[in-house]
Amino acid sequence: MYICVLFGKMIHITRKESFNAAHKLARPDWTDAKNQEVFGKCANPNWHGHNYNLYVTVKGEVNPETGFLVDLKWLKVIINKYVVDKIDHKNLNLEVDFMKDKLASTENLAIAIWDELLPHIEKEGAYLHSIKLYETDNNYVEYFGN
Amino acid sequence: MYICVLFGKMIHITRKESFNAAHKLARPDWTDAKNQEVFGKCANPNWHGHNYNLYVTVKGEVNPETGFLVDLKWLKVIINKYVVDKIDHKNLNLEVDFMKDKLASTENLAIAIWDELLPHIEKEGAYLHSIKLYETDNNYVEYFGN
Amino acid sequence: MYICVLFGKMIHITRKESFNAAHKLARPDWTDAKNQEVFGKCANPNWHGHNYNLYVTVKGEVNPETGFLVDLKWLKVIINKYVVDKIDHKNLNLEVDFMKDKLASTENLAIAIWDELLPHIEKEGAYLHSIKLYETDNNYVEYFGN
Amino acid sequence: MYICVLFGKMIHITRKESFNAAHKLARPDWTDAKNQEVFGKCANPNWHGHNYNLYVTVKGEVNPETGFLVDLKWLKVIINKYVVDKIDHKNLNLEVDFMKDKLASTENLAIAIWDELLPHIEKEGAYLHSIKLYETDNNYVEYFGN
Amino acid sequence: MYICVLFGKMIHITRKESFNAAHKLARPDWTDAKNQEVFGKCANPNWHGHNYNLYVTVKGEVNPETGFLVDLKWLKVIINKYVVDKIDHKNLNLEVDFMKDKLASTENLAIAIWDELLPHIEKEGAYLHSIKLYETDNNYVEYFGN
Amino acid sequence: MYICVLFGKMIHITRKESFNAAHKLARPDWTDAKNQEVFGKCANPNWHGHNYNLYVTVKGEVNPETGFLVDLKWLKVIINKYVVDKIDHKNLNLEVDFMKDKLASTENLAIAIWDELLPHIEKEGAYLHSIKLYETDNNYVEYFGN
Repeated sequence: MYICVLFGKMIHITRKESFNAAHKLARPDWTDAKNQEVFGKCANPNWHGHNYNLYVTVKGEVNPETGFLVDLKWLKVIINKYVVDKIDHKNLNLEVDFMKDKLASTENLAIAIWDELLPHIEKEGAYLHSIKLYETDNNYVEYFGN
Repeated sequence: MYICVLFGKMIHITRKESFNAAHKLARPDWTDAKNQEVFGKCANPNWHGHNYNLYVTVKGEVNPETGFLVDLKWLKVIINKYVVDKIDHKNLNLEVDFMKDKLASTENLAIAIWDELLPHIEKEGAYLHSIKLYETDNNYVEYFGN
Repeated sequence: MYICVLFGKMIHITRKESFNAAHKLARPDWTDAKNQEVFGKCANPNWHGHNYNLYVTVKGEVNPETGFLVDLKWLKVIINKYVVDKIDHKNLNLEVDFMKDKLASTENLAIAIWDELLPHIEKEGAYLHSIKLYETDNNYVEYFGN
Repeated sequence: MYICVLFGKMIHITRKESFNAAHKLARPDWTDAKNQEVFGKCANPNWHGHNYNLYVTVKGEVNPETGFLVDLKWLKVIINKYVVDKIDHKNLNLEVDFMKDKLASTENLAIAIWDELLPHIEKEGAYLHSIKLYETDNNYVEYFGN
Repeated sequence: MYICVLFGKMIHITRKESFNAAHKLARPDWTDAKNQEVFGKCANPNWHGHNYNLYVTVKGEVNPETGFLVDLKWLKVIINKYVVDKIDHKNLNLEVDFMKDKLASTENLAIAIWDELLPHIEKEGAYLHSIKLYETDNNYVEYFGN
Repeated sequence: MYICVLFGKMIHITRKESFNAAHKLARPDWTDAKNQEVFGKCANPNWHGHNYNLYVTVKGEVNPETGFLVDLKWLKVIINKYVVDKIDHKNLNLEVDFMKDKLASTENLAIAIWDELLPHIEKEGAYLHSIKLYETDNNYVEYFGN
């Protein structure tokens, strides 16, 4: 399952961050009635919003010198710089460059967050394992990169 | 502390409900710059949103016939009919009648929810004790009616 | 509000314990149809059950010698000996002496737990402040002793 | 690991639902003493119960038209119709058709829920990935279908 | 109960912050054996530690201009500057000025945090209502200032 | 993915336990300045600590006689005897035999816990699937044994 060659032991480490954002689920090429029919109250033209909880899991070998896979302070900075700062207290449909021209579903947002973080995680020599994104306490999405 | 006359024992019972809404903190009579200065990123003109958690506490005597203070199914219906259905997946600034002409702060929202629920709770012969409203896991407001 | 005379500072301390129990809400002097009408699915004659979470709050002065109000290990033992061991994995309607002849509502259970614990807490020189009992994550009852 | 052919990206989406039920762990072909010895207090003949939390995870490609894997409103309806409505406020040993002649362990319940949901999920063109079932906050079972 | 004169409506607002610290419960004027007898494993001379969760509740009138009781960003800064920065990743017995010469119990820590925060909250024109301090998920202390 | 031969259905079962411990992240062969530079406030020579939450997942076939994969009471005993009792209210750097000469990172602790538990789980005929260890609510590590 893992294509990386490990001489040591594979560990997974996860960091949780949060953000609050507005969105709506509606296609601009559909009528309001069609959007309402497909997306229900999530299509409200005046927006609604969520407290999203984001869990980023990276994996790789433990560095024997530090006992760390990656420095969590670094991981926190990366997630905030490339994701949270761009979407916290924002409108996902109108203001987020990496969601441009995409439906603002939790599924699409999780995939977009993966694409934003991947190069920065890999540059550090770790593997991005998964993005887990809670829209509410009762719904979450996971993406493993393919 | 309680002004009601109780012949039995006073009990408090709490029901939790949730809703998701968009809002912004901004006064229409202030410039964008002034709103930004006072409210920070909460003033974003394109809105942001939250998963609000609402705890409604009522108090009174236990009915010896049922062992209930009030029927929780009834309390759930009242909270949903008079509050949640009016604000879930809505824009607190634009679409909620009982927030009209008010700043959409958690404080004002908790007070407005109290005012909405009070007559319906009292009609049932119970006392409304408190509204506790979480905006995020780290912030909440409580209102006791005066 | 507090009738005790304190020479030091009043502190509240809370211990959480849990138990799992079966119950039904039904009066033996009512017909099944009447019970069903009043209590809905909670009246199911074949029982249902819950993971109850119990929060016991005691209050009083901090003992300057130990920095404790009461020893939490002692409080844990008291709650388990006089409450949890009698109701965990039990049927609240059939097997719990202090619920005999009472409707097995959360309200009545909280009051009965207060009555069970009060003498043991007072014997230790502390005040029992409240019993908070969660039936589910969305419903809880609080009792302050009068 | 996945036997489905995906032209797009695989996403996992999870919906949480809850139910309260009574049960006991006891084999009818064993004596009470034997049941007590093997299952301990879980064998109490008068039943006990739990608030179960159920997480259903489905996987598949995101529909480019809606940004959804599946409509969560639909998933919620399916889980409630085929599982929750049949076991909520019920006795797992006596009243649930799909638990008939099975020991009412969390393991067996998770497998039975998988079997109930599988045809309805597949009919919608999605894959059922896992059933995760919490009996208490400290114990849970996961089943991946084989 | 409230000695303040309010022309408007009283609201309570709570901010949660967290910190991790080491401590032990042991009196320097007692022998190890005596400390072990009274404090049990909490007296371990080599220390143990906790993730503490701190809830600070302030109360007062809502400012009609902002819809705020106090600015939560300000409250967060105050709590971090005067409390969290002084105790996070620290040893409560050895390194925290406001715990000097005190037993490092949760009770004493909650009272000391009250004393640290009170002047800064009052300077802002709000009232400090309570300090709620979780040592673990199962134990917490509340202090109301007298 | 699973190398075991199963005639029945594979189930995963997880038990959560908790412990409180002190630690620091610092190499004895580095200067304080170097440790401070690499590990930040986690290198505090006077220690800090955490409430760790430990999730142990075992997998295997359900025993048709009991409906159990393993008896959770047994799993609880094993985890407490071989892990929790050795590290609860302890100093991970100074007092835990299986952490001797290792950096007390969450990664290393999770791997060491795996090594401690593996023989006892296998002796029971089950497979150890994963160790999931929360250091705080925002950080956790998972180890799958290779």
